[in-house]
Amino acid sequence: MANELNKVLRCEALKDKIVTAEEAASWIEDGMSLGLSGFTLSGDAKAVPLALAERGKKEKLKVNVFTGASLGPNVDELMAEEDMINLRIPYQGNPAMRGKINSGESFYIDQHLSHTAEWVRQGVIGPIDYAIIEAAAITEDGQIIPTGSVGNSPIFVENAKHVIIELNVNVPAEYEGLHDIFIPAKQGERKEIPVYSVTDKIGTPGIKVDPEKVRGIVITEKGDIPSPIVPPDEETQEIANNLLDFFRDEIKKGRMDETLMPLQSGVGSVANAVLDGMRTSEFKDIEVYSEVLQDAIFDLIDDGVVKFASATSLTLSKKRLDSLQEDIGKYRDKLVFRPQEVSNHPEVIRRLGIISFNTALELDIYGNVNSTHVSGTRMMNGIGGSGDFARNARIAIFVTKSYAKGGDVSSIVPFCSHVDHTEHDVDVIVTEQGYADLRGLAPRQKAEALIEHCAHPDFKDELRDYFNRAKDQVGGQTPHILEEALSWHVNLAKNKTMHKEAPVQK
Amino acid sequence: MANELNKVLRCEALKDKIVTAEEAASWIEDGMSLGLSGFTLSGDAKAVPLALAERGKKEKLKVNVFTGASLGPNVDELMAEEDMINLRIPYQGNPAMRGKINSGESFYIDQHLSHTAEWVRQGVIGPIDYAIIEAAAITEDGQIIPTGSVGNSPIFVENAKHVIIELNVNVPAEYEGLHDIFIPAKQGERKEIPVYSVTDKIGTPGIKVDPEKVRGIVITEKGDIPSPIVPPDEETQEIANNLLDFFRDEIKKGRMDETLMPLQSGVGSVANAVLDGMRTSEFKDIEVYSEVLQDAIFDLIDDGVVKFASATSLTLSKKRLDSLQEDIGKYRDKLVFRPQEVSNHPEVIRRLGIISFNTALELDIYGNVNSTHVSGTRMMNGIGGSGDFARNARIAIFVTKSYAKGGDVSSIVPFCSHVDHTEHDVDVIVTEQGYADLRGLAPRQKAEALIEHCAHPDFKDELRDYFNRAKDQVGGQTPHILEEALSWHVNLAKNKTMHKEAPVQK
Repeated sequence: MANELNKVLRCEALKDKIVTAEEAASWIEDGMSLGLSGFTLSGDAKAVPLALAERGKKEKLKVNVFTGASLGPNVDELMAEEDMINLRIPYQGNPAMRGKINSGESFYIDQHLSHTAEWVRQGVIGPIDYAIIEAAAITEDGQIIPTGSVGNSPIFVENAKHVIIELNVNVPAEYEGLHDIFIPAKQGERKEIPVYSVTDKIGTPGIKVDPEKVRGIVITEKGDIPSPIVPPDEETQEIANNLLDFFRDEIKKGRMDETLMPLQSGVGSVANAVLDGMRTSEFKDIEVYSEVLQDAIFDLIDDGVVKFASATSLTLSKKRLDSLQEDIGKYRDKLVFRPQEVSNHPEVIRRLGIISFNTALELDIYGNVNSTHVSGTRMMNGIGGSGDFARNARIAIFVTKSYAKGGDVSSIVPFCSHVDHTEHDVDVIVTEQGYADLRGLAPRQKAEALIEHCAHPDFKDELRDYFNRAKDQVGGQTPHILEEALSWHVNLAKNKTMHKEAPVQK
Repeated sequence: MANELNKVLRCEALKDKIVTAEEAASWIEDGMSLGLSGFTLSGDAKAVPLALAERGKKEKLKVNVFTGASLGPNVDELMAEEDMINLRIPYQGNPAMRGKINSGESFYIDQHLSHTAEWVRQGVIGPIDYAIIEAAAITEDGQIIPTGSVGNSPIFVENAKHVIIELNVNVPAEYEGLHDIFIPAKQGERKEIPVYSVTDKIGTPGIKVDPEKVRGIVITEKGDIPSPIVPPDEETQEIANNLLDFFRDEIKKGRMDETLMPLQSGVGSVANAVLDGMRTSEFKDIEVYSEVLQDAIFDLIDDGVVKFASATSLTLSKKRLDSLQEDIGKYRDKLVFRPQEVSNHPEVIRRLGIISFNTALELDIYGNVNSTHVSGTRMMNGIGGSGDFARNARIAIFVTKSYAKGGDVSSIVPFCSHVDHTEHDVDVIVTEQGYADLRGLAPRQKAEALIEHCAHPDFKDELRDYFNRAKDQVGGQTPHILEEALSWHVNLAKNKTMHKEAPVQK
């Protein structure tokens, strides 16, 4: 049930620029830099990258790919498999792309998601040869209306030499009006980002583009790739319960009421379980100022628990994607999509007093968090917006199961094999065992709280043993025995377990 | 040449509250929390802490001490020596205090300097029983005019149960008008911090206080402790030259002009040498948006190179302190002192596009920086404002000599023994060997640049050897051999050198 083309392509100056994806892809040359729409597989350019990947099968063609965040398979899978990506910024989540990154065949800059726009603006990266942007419509005055994400599209369009628009005629017309496009001026000439409340709209409904810069418009119909929703297991549910208990304790201490403060949540099963747990809780009139909206946020809006949600992107199940095709219009007064530079801006996050919760891969006994690197070396996905939020949030919470690999790996280790969030930026840790509020604690106190409340019982004795010996033998503000600090990871690589000796019974 | 008391104590309601330091100190009870003025030994409360330290010799008296940053000897030395400090926040730099922290006898929270005010406001720390604030004057309407620093005094006064003012009658009257006191509202009710240019004044000249809350006024005459100025050695001078060359290259690339962007500089000999180098350079009309002003900034103002400087504190030589006693008035239109919550606020730092340079203790081959912990365990001073600035700066620069301990220690190591600034937040490294611009580079490229341009020649081969073997044997986004990663530090502890084998010739 595609939209009539004249209803979505309304800019006269652009009506004669329709080309095939193949033709548009033919303009791209080896060594160019591309700025692509897309964030968490939502609103990504699809047709031109696919045609480009086809070219990559036959010719040597390697480009730099800058995006909002993770893209669908046409870029991060197909183009990676054809070895077409020289440099990838700022986030990805695809096994093929990850493989190329970890083998050193592609360069990857794992960047805070609010920073890429500044680099483009300053000329640290780029110039961007082509911005390729998915659109729901092009307005009379040449504004590009984005689809399921805004991401970095505005800054790419502003700075690109040429723009290619993928006009997706299968996107509900009601997407128009859901976006709020605001581009900060250069540093030094910039005023405030005037978002004082989650609901404030400060920009235009679309991305303004000089029609002269638009080289081609490709008509598409293909939808976003849905995200699988992993139902919570028992431990994920426990993490969610513990996090909600932390909120309750903050309320008891008089630091907030049951409307909390605006929430940012990472993506995944824990976030889904937490948000799900709020459906039947005492929390109410919740505001969300986040990066990505999952199904659970829409459920909470439907239930009247969340009153407004601001983000830069969606990541949804097939079921919710399908239903939004029909009913996105009903969320008109409940939603806004902003550029990631604004959704993740330190100014707004600090001003609004966001409570952020994101997933940790591992953490150490002093509360330093690794979000990205398995055993210090192999990239998983990237830091994403977790640093943007944790660093400037009112309360920066990290969640993780206390163990992994069936009990052979402790998520709490003596020493992190990689640090993405330092102890200065980590406020609360939540596992299925409980939570540790690290605020107001010195490092030695943090270690005691983390071992006591968050570590898995099978690892508590070994963690305590390390900590006590480090205090006795070495001392200091953050006692460590450097000979042993990374021995848990070394042991894991050699013996498939972090335990010094195999537990008596598995 | 003390000021006449009636000229500086102008608030009628407070004139009968003069007490001795001993009496004021007698009000303080074991277990209380104190909020003290003072930052880099400037503008610190002096008389009441001294009287308190005297009490500590005779009785058990342990308190929590919250400040702006480092204080003079009356607190961080005398009180620490008497074991009177339970918890210290957010920064210190005194050997006695450091000793108590590293032995675990005092708890220390090493906090970003812009964050303490938020914790006080939210009730995460406190309540503050007594704010003890040095003042140059108390105005007719009860505003406390600070002296050589603002620090956290405004938030301490706002939140304390009681206030004690140390009215220093030896401070030049011209201090009045140099401060700009602005206290953000609670998160959720807050508007922007309306600093759009380094020169903007947005608040009041003093800290408003309810006279009812002022329990006593202590008249003092003692000046701040001067800071020794270490003249640059050859290598410090080389670091400065390399940093200025980096600025020149940015100008060549068209990213800024010779007025640069507003500068933040850490304290110390490198900062002094850099600033000194600017005196005879092509750079002009420089603005400073920093935390602490050293002598060199005043020299640059005198020379007409710096046109305006904003900070929260001073750290000056005896010579400059003495001359300011006479001529501080002439800097009236060139200076402003703000609360550290504003001088270090992410919103303002990101908006203005600050270039920050701070000192690293060590860094690893991928650009993670340790600012605080010797061999991962022993606290030096603290992170200070380096994180506030680096995380939100336009360009975050860290400087260090490439070696220490006469060549036995490499400042660039395979793996940091502690991380305060992650690779996501570190843009440029400068040593006496050269500089590495890490922006736009993936980790493996960063390693090559750092080893090539910044490492000491005596360590280059060993660093390359580690990096190459890590790539070959392990691979990944940031290749590491975890068995070896901390071996340089372990070797240093055992053999007094990071070199695997003793160099042939020392």
